Amino acid sequence: MTETFFTTGPIDFGNGQPADALLPLDSLRQAAEHALAQGDVTMLQYGANAGDKGVRASLAHFLTRRYGMPVTAGQLMVSAGISQALDLVCTRFTKPGDTIFVEEPTYFLALDVFRDHGLTVVGIPIDGDGLRTDVLRDALTRHRAAFLYTIPSFQNPSAATMSAARREELIALSGEYELLVVADEVYQLLDFGVAPPPPLATYAGADRVLSLGSFSKICAPGLRLGWIHGAPPLLEALAHSGVVESGGGLNPFASSVMKSLIDLGLADRVLDDLRSVHAHHASVLCEALRVHVPRATFVEPRGGYFVWLELPHDLTATALLKTATKLGVTFHPGSRFVSGGGFPHAARLSFAHYDERELVEGVQRLARAMSTSP
Amino acid sequence: MTETFFTTGPIDFGNGQPADALLPLDSLRQAAEHALAQGDVTMLQYGANAGDKGVRASLAHFLTRRYGMPVTAGQLMVSAGISQALDLVCTRFTKPGDTIFVEEPTYFLALDVFRDHGLTVVGIPIDGDGLRTDVLRDALTRHRAAFLYTIPSFQNPSAATMSAARREELIALSGEYELLVVADEVYQLLDFGVAPPPPLATYAGADRVLSLGSFSKICAPGLRLGWIHGAPPLLEALAHSGVVESGGGLNPFASSVMKSLIDLGLADRVLDDLRSVHAHHASVLCEALRVHVPRATFVEPRGGYFVWLELPHDLTATALLKTATKLGVTFHPGSRFVSGGGFPHAARLSFAHYDERELVEGVQRLARAMSTSP
Repeated sequence: MTETFFTTGPIDFGNGQPADALLPLDSLRQAAEHALAQGDVTMLQYGANAGDKGVRASLAHFLTRRYGMPVTAGQLMVSAGISQALDLVCTRFTKPGDTIFVEEPTYFLALDVFRDHGLTVVGIPIDGDGLRTDVLRDALTRHRAAFLYTIPSFQNPSAATMSAARREELIALSGEYELLVVADEVYQLLDFGVAPPPPLATYAGADRVLSLGSFSKICAPGLRLGWIHGAPPLLEALAHSGVVESGGGLNPFASSVMKSLIDLGLADRVLDDLRSVHAHHASVLCEALRVHVPRATFVEPRGGYFVWLELPHDLTATALLKTATKLGVTFHPGSRFVSGGGFPHAARLSFAHYDERELVEGVQRLARAMSTSP
Repeated sequence: MTETFFTTGPIDFGNGQPADALLPLDSLRQAAEHALAQGDVTMLQYGANAGDKGVRASLAHFLTRRYGMPVTAGQLMVSAGISQALDLVCTRFTKPGDTIFVEEPTYFLALDVFRDHGLTVVGIPIDGDGLRTDVLRDALTRHRAAFLYTIPSFQNPSAATMSAARREELIALSGEYELLVVADEVYQLLDFGVAPPPPLATYAGADRVLSLGSFSKICAPGLRLGWIHGAPPLLEALAHSGVVESGGGLNPFASSVMKSLIDLGLADRVLDDLRSVHAHHASVLCEALRVHVPRATFVEPRGGYFVWLELPHDLTATALLKTATKLGVTFHPGSRFVSGGGFPHAARLSFAHYDERELVEGVQRLARAMSTSP
């Protein structure tokens, strides 16, 4: 290995953060200036538990337009991001020892939130159409679960999207078994041109569904701002938690800045810019993988942040990771995305954090690691 | 009752929010502009679990100066306010069914946070020197408690401040019985001229103490920003919770605005302005009470937000509240501040939310209610 090999430094395909260069500093400067110029101290005061009425109205307009489905302010509660919303759902709707269902594979850091609440996790497999609702139906006859945690669109880590038919089956099962469905829809708006089926909370009969949204991946994670979309009785239970009552709503200041970002038309522009950059980066990563790592297979993502790579079955992801790390490239092995291990030949690669040149360089390093792995 | 009686509208002495007129909109506009002009996207990205290094350094300088005691960045974690910090402490350090100690009386909304975590609350009385450490010692021999929740300075609702001697006894008990002490120090910096004894986490031997601070009462609640001050091993356990790992620290955006507010010297100015206004409002309220409600007694507060009024013992606070409500003035009766009832003749009045004229008008209405109460 020569010194010049590391011209771009280590490349971490495991990094699921948006690229620094794509964070909309200038738009947020404009939005903050606009919000603070209104002369309205509401944004500095303790707020309504569900979030400011005006903020929720702007958010409802934004989501209605972006989803192509009606969303009302009454179906929304402002959150401090999906992690916080998940934590709140666990505090209000579970007790330690409860069982919950999660997809296999699933977002690994959500598993840490569930661990902190003492929950027992039962995995439900997914396929190219998302959650295997037939397996879920079977599991429902054997377990009483506090909720199902699903990432229906451009899933983390698999990039799979739950089909419309599966979504309808899931809503039917939710009604039949009184199952609370907690949908992490952080990638819902991040399609590359063709929208996924609409959020689970917009389906008819979705009385026991919470669709969790976030500005982290479509604007900026540091705002710690998101929303919970669902039937008013569910939102009531969350809004009347002790932490929300005492704190006076979640992030009134950041949410007012976001309202300005939406009202000024900047949120749409930021999101559309991101979508086109990500679509391009995904196609660069996929093309590089086809050219340089032809022995690995994957389904080209149509949105989201990730490619789920299946390695040849004579090579485990953890073995490859060891060699790859020495060659300046890392990723998350499949075993991270399941409680108790699994997916030994899978690797999650994010295309969201690097530029074209770095993505190609990273794949070339990966190819070199594969050719020298034991 | 004539129409002109209600010229100022109903006056709610129960309102513990800062007055809208005192919220520093202009200072925060300057701080936000400064923060967003740095060209540093750190404030928009996922952040360090404990909070940004630069933010914690500025906060450490601010607290060292204001406390007159050394505080280092390594002893600080950024929080989303005290309610969020309490919720996180419960998630990480308790399980449902655990016992905790709280002061009697105590902050009523904290009780809702503890309820959500299924905790059993055991009350420890306070007196003019704060927590009765002799009673605590006795309780420690009978209960294994997950933690003690205390509000040591200008307590909510009693305005009592724990003496230095009691603080030392408490730290000794914490060591002796391995008791975690969770100190809600939201009013610590809000003295009217004479500082209370320093925060519990600054005491020698305070290895099991978390001092929770907040910008809600000294700047603006809507920021949802505070800090946790304590020994690094305790902070580690909180910082590595699932919700903080997944969310990437708490409120990076708001915390960068706060860093600018501190660095520009505005945080000091805002706090000192508030202290002098509150000192004046407290003295106006107390003088009005002495003149118009001489049958009630109270200890004049030396900081914080509240006066704890003891009614004559032939009058309960709930009976008075009924009459008072009709006459356009309300307050929180003592029974709200204890799990399971108590303090039937006490009333908490806040002087922080209204101007002089309104405070006097409110007391006049209260006097009228007292003279007509059954």
